[in-house]
Amino acid sequence: MEADFSNIHIIMVGTTHPGNIGGVARAMKNMGLSRLSLVAPEAPFPHAKARARASGAVNVLENTQIFSTLEEAIADCSLVIGSSARMRTLPWPVVDPRECASRVVNVAQESEVAIVLGRENSGLTNEELELCQLLVTIPTNPDFSSLNIAAAAQVLCYEIRLAAALDITPVDKPDSPLATSAETEGMYQHFEQALTEIEFLKPDNPGQLMRRLRRLFTRTGLERLEVNILRGIMSAAQKVKSRSE
Amino acid sequence: MEADFSNIHIIMVGTTHPGNIGGVARAMKNMGLSRLSLVAPEAPFPHAKARARASGAVNVLENTQIFSTLEEAIADCSLVIGSSARMRTLPWPVVDPRECASRVVNVAQESEVAIVLGRENSGLTNEELELCQLLVTIPTNPDFSSLNIAAAAQVLCYEIRLAAALDITPVDKPDSPLATSAETEGMYQHFEQALTEIEFLKPDNPGQLMRRLRRLFTRTGLERLEVNILRGIMSAAQKVKSRSE
Repeated sequence: MEADFSNIHIIMVGTTHPGNIGGVARAMKNMGLSRLSLVAPEAPFPHAKARARASGAVNVLENTQIFSTLEEAIADCSLVIGSSARMRTLPWPVVDPRECASRVVNVAQESEVAIVLGRENSGLTNEELELCQLLVTIPTNPDFSSLNIAAAAQVLCYEIRLAAALDITPVDKPDSPLATSAETEGMYQHFEQALTEIEFLKPDNPGQLMRRLRRLFTRTGLERLEVNILRGIMSAAQKVKSRSE
Repeated sequence: MEADFSNIHIIMVGTTHPGNIGGVARAMKNMGLSRLSLVAPEAPFPHAKARARASGAVNVLENTQIFSTLEEAIADCSLVIGSSARMRTLPWPVVDPRECASRVVNVAQESEVAIVLGRENSGLTNEELELCQLLVTIPTNPDFSSLNIAAAAQVLCYEIRLAAALDITPVDKPDSPLATSAETEGMYQHFEQALTEIEFLKPDNPGQLMRRLRRLFTRTGLERLEVNILRGIMSAAQKVKSRSE
């Protein structure tokens, strides 16, 4: 089931580049969010560049609300988190994106929540930051800390999607059943036999090399089909050998 | 202390928009990465749009290497992870960005590592995917799953930065150095040659079986010594074959 992120608002304050509005809309929709608000945008809106960068997220742009102040935009929200590139002189509680996401998803189950993104060049003013209960800071290279605003939105929304714990899809599902222990043991015996016949293994001391092969194959977890392929290779080598005699 | 990410390469294959190259460079530098490679870019490069989107990450662009094939770009890499939007018909091991980052940071302590980003519209070809040991998929809204390539790079590099901040000690440290991509490719060619000679592979259709062998061995991450053992087995089979003629 797809998560319901309809209580989560992304609010862009004083955005100057129309393309960035589209970039944020796309980042949001990629992660399943849909509610975008603009506060006093400097960029013209709507705009062709916003549509272009939004790619297929045009519905997010079409439903975007516009406010003249941040106070109005967050009026219905129970939790407001401001994005801030660095610590201000005024100490304010700061969380990382993962902690931010956990709180957002938690509160959004019952209430409206907002994440506030500041101006591309100057961020949020102190007055705007004071309207936020928390600040979120994305860890960055201290020598180059300013993310593109759509990239910042991508990271924050990605963590929200993870926090909602939606996408636990089985990783690396085998497409054939895993081999049983008896099957892999049979394979090792076949290897030892065949490799001795083709004179790769010295019959007096097969131990070290067989151990290395075991280590290699046990690390990965063999599927039944793979055991059959590997035994097929050994059988082919044995057949060639018997023809040479 | 700032982490050392100098062993981590981001490789963009067949990129069509010059602005996206700049966007990826910026996303990398924000997270402390610096080594960008382009494989057969369709976009003109260098380009003013790349510089503009790179913002202050111009040094990343200036040091970007250009290759004509992915094989050349990854030749020195011991771990190659391809970015892929969704599961392909042939199952290949898939990790999420967090697991990807953990493996990248771990292997990069001693070896070169690459993350490969495909074309904006069509991703990586099956042939390119087969050069990757792992695929990484960013969890997304299933109805709108295609991230902007710079946004994808931002998420992947962000997780790498987080993973480096954790204290990761290598589990199952290899006792011989990991094989490079060039070494494992040489091994597959040797396999294909030898298995054809001993008539295990039909020369008209080696694809499916070779893919299965690749899948098996890439899942585990081969050490150089293991590549040598496996090639030794193939050489022994070839020798027997030549004696039978």
